[in-house]
Amino acid sequence: MSPLPEAYEKLRARGKDLALLGATTGLLSWDQETLLPPKGHSFRAEQSSLLAGISHRLATHTDIARWLDECESTSLPPHSPEAAAIARWRHDYHRATRIPAELVEENELAIGLSRTAWVEARKNSHFPTFAPHLEKLLSLSRQMADLWGYADQPYDALLEGYEPGWLTRDVTALFAKLRPRLVAIAEKAFALPQPPSRKTLRGHYPRADQEKFLQLLLPKIGFDINAGRLDSSTHPFCSGLGPGDTRMTTRYDENDFMVSLYGVLHEAGHGLYDQGLPESQLGTPLGQAASLGIHESQSRLWENRIGRSRSFWKSWWPDFTRAFTDLTGHKHEDCWRASNAVERSFIRVEADEVTYDLHILLRFELETQLLKGDLSVHDLPAAWNELFEKLLGLKVPDDARGCLQDIHWSLGGFGYFPTYTLGNLTSSQLWQAANRDIPTLPTSVENRDYQPLLRWLREKVHSHGRRYPAAELVQRATGKPLDPEAHLKVLESKVQELSQ
Amino acid sequence: MSPLPEAYEKLRARGKDLALLGATTGLLSWDQETLLPPKGHSFRAEQSSLLAGISHRLATHTDIARWLDECESTSLPPHSPEAAAIARWRHDYHRATRIPAELVEENELAIGLSRTAWVEARKNSHFPTFAPHLEKLLSLSRQMADLWGYADQPYDALLEGYEPGWLTRDVTALFAKLRPRLVAIAEKAFALPQPPSRKTLRGHYPRADQEKFLQLLLPKIGFDINAGRLDSSTHPFCSGLGPGDTRMTTRYDENDFMVSLYGVLHEAGHGLYDQGLPESQLGTPLGQAASLGIHESQSRLWENRIGRSRSFWKSWWPDFTRAFTDLTGHKHEDCWRASNAVERSFIRVEADEVTYDLHILLRFELETQLLKGDLSVHDLPAAWNELFEKLLGLKVPDDARGCLQDIHWSLGGFGYFPTYTLGNLTSSQLWQAANRDIPTLPTSVENRDYQPLLRWLREKVHSHGRRYPAAELVQRATGKPLDPEAHLKVLESKVQELSQ
Repeated sequence: MSPLPEAYEKLRARGKDLALLGATTGLLSWDQETLLPPKGHSFRAEQSSLLAGISHRLATHTDIARWLDECESTSLPPHSPEAAAIARWRHDYHRATRIPAELVEENELAIGLSRTAWVEARKNSHFPTFAPHLEKLLSLSRQMADLWGYADQPYDALLEGYEPGWLTRDVTALFAKLRPRLVAIAEKAFALPQPPSRKTLRGHYPRADQEKFLQLLLPKIGFDINAGRLDSSTHPFCSGLGPGDTRMTTRYDENDFMVSLYGVLHEAGHGLYDQGLPESQLGTPLGQAASLGIHESQSRLWENRIGRSRSFWKSWWPDFTRAFTDLTGHKHEDCWRASNAVERSFIRVEADEVTYDLHILLRFELETQLLKGDLSVHDLPAAWNELFEKLLGLKVPDDARGCLQDIHWSLGGFGYFPTYTLGNLTSSQLWQAANRDIPTLPTSVENRDYQPLLRWLREKVHSHGRRYPAAELVQRATGKPLDPEAHLKVLESKVQELSQ
Repeated sequence: MSPLPEAYEKLRARGKDLALLGATTGLLSWDQETLLPPKGHSFRAEQSSLLAGISHRLATHTDIARWLDECESTSLPPHSPEAAAIARWRHDYHRATRIPAELVEENELAIGLSRTAWVEARKNSHFPTFAPHLEKLLSLSRQMADLWGYADQPYDALLEGYEPGWLTRDVTALFAKLRPRLVAIAEKAFALPQPPSRKTLRGHYPRADQEKFLQLLLPKIGFDINAGRLDSSTHPFCSGLGPGDTRMTTRYDENDFMVSLYGVLHEAGHGLYDQGLPESQLGTPLGQAASLGIHESQSRLWENRIGRSRSFWKSWWPDFTRAFTDLTGHKHEDCWRASNAVERSFIRVEADEVTYDLHILLRFELETQLLKGDLSVHDLPAAWNELFEKLLGLKVPDDARGCLQDIHWSLGGFGYFPTYTLGNLTSSQLWQAANRDIPTLPTSVENRDYQPLLRWLREKVHSHGRRYPAAELVQRATGKPLDPEAHLKVLESKVQELSQ
């Protein structure tokens, strides 16, 4: 191959600076969620806002346009990784330059204040504390959507930021197809003669014991604990700050060890992806994740296909019983069933696999309406509660268990939620393909050897960074376009298995 | 008063941005000392370097020269706080503009790598691991000293960065006066018929119990725990990141609870100063600490004048015995004596008050020689060991307990050490003045009411920020110039008391 144009190296160097700044903003926000003293939040919001402005100025500098022009005028092979990197850079530059730095800073500042208000509102289940912040963030997002431009509705422009290539109408169509199938599977599960439940396992599981168990589990599934951390926060998340520094958080419930267990298996799935991105490509899109949906497919795969499998419970059982004395008298089969219990419940992050996407469908519908202006912030709680009852058959008792439960809107993350369902669909399709490609996969998982699976994911997904658009990545990894059937089949089989 | 010139507000806004960036760099480095995963250090060094470069460019922009010119040409009252702020800004701008951004970044990068090497070197007591980094940092410091300029020797220019107004020859003269007096007091203490010792108190003091006790102590002395944190690190420090966010660290030894106790009392002294700086002056020098020596005077005052007093041990004794079962059978008098034990020892941060400054005198002598080139890095361990034996009468067994023990040189902090001794001298002089101004001080301290002392420090020291040069601040607070006699008298009385 001919040497890369000088402009490419300049783009890479600028990208490296942006990655360093992004990791710094990431640390500010990680710290805000985990450790920041209560009185430090307003100063922290100003810090994040300043950093966001500096990053934005660097990302939108006219130098970049010049370097991109130069790269585009050279004859890189059209299917080379570098040609893909240039296309992604162009996409990002185009989006970033539509928004003036002042608006970026205003948005960051509003997010900082909103997040603090949301914590307070959720604690007291008091929507009015949060409402003006939500109003403000929606208005800022609408402004940004107008600047980005869209074919059909403002939400398109926001969705493009999380899941490039998807339009609101396509998501709407996909979700309309999923909804009746999911409701049918859920109804079947609710009607199981002896529904399993996590309640039967309630006991005292000291936090320290949970932490110890998780520190044992993480390296075993391939997470490099010398290149990351596990901490705790109200809302679990994973932040790939940079090479050698991938940080996850979880929540602890001393009555139910599965809260932290599945929190960690989920976040570790994200973490494995972050740790698997090619470090040599730092600064270029080839060192970045493909999309949020692809990211979510990794977390859901480890959480659900591995962590909620019979063989997981069977193979880890000796360690579980050593870690938790209150498991005495239970069987691994009880835990497997309990971990797969399908139940009507209020909280998305605690929802089972079957009802989970119903929670997402609800959020997607409400946030598209909020953006369009068809739903006012004032009417959000009532609309939430009404739709929730329709989908999940439960009356929402308070907003803390309703429209205040998630952090996303408090961070201005409109357009983010559908990526969860896209991730779920993708995870099952990847799992199906991995099993086709690795006939010994069930045996190795039974033996707690997760390396073959991780190697497959590294090769098919992680190592490509953002080279391929999500749709193409799925096609290449699985041999077919994204299709909800794999996931629906997984759910149907699981409910079938539980009924036996 | 006439309204402030517009240029003053611009300087304040720029100062605010620099404070926000400084707090961000501060968080990066706090995190590096406390939490950063082992494999994240090299990326972190690049982050710090980039941020330092951005700050440097903002701090040296020609805008500032223009704003300063404008401010200086308006008729602000010459003794007003704002006139003082302008003078400090001018001083900082002059210093900052002498160093090109590339050199700042190179230095930051070198520091990041050096720190990692130092941790390794100290762990293995292997000086050659650290030597090339020390060489590099010395060479960078010499380059910077040449750019700043100096009257007599490069060390002058470095010292000016930590303790403005002091010259190397003045420190040399002061230390030459102190040395025989300190040695005489130490000899007297070593010869006590029944020397007290912390060894007699060795027991099992679980870390969790120590943490609990410290969380009780901190608010009682006035530290706002909702505006700060206490964590642990190899080398204790305090970082006033910004309003509402003052972070301290300490070390824990489960056999000797006094390690964390005095670590925290020391860092809390720094923390109280940081929390006492006027938040309304954020962005101007009036919201900054006066100097490192003044900072250290606060930490030493709380650590030694409060924490090592008889009344501290007497008044806290019920809480100590509740916290630590292994104190059963001991008396508060034993602890008071043990906490004041004067001993020949290797480690500065664990040294008693009497020998402490001998450790500083040694470092000052060696670092001035290193800077001048009179001592080579290669010969440092031998020179350290020789001088150490002369001053403290002990043979240094390994470099971990010798020239590798302190973090400062690994961070390029040449010129920092003398501020410790200046701080010690200042702390005793402030204590003397506080007792003169508040006749009821001994009684309130006996009753664990530290508010009168804290109010006095807030009024005389904290609230002024950097308005006065350190020498003038001491003069104003105590009514006389800095003079070592107050401190020597304190030490002589303490040894006298111990002999009874």
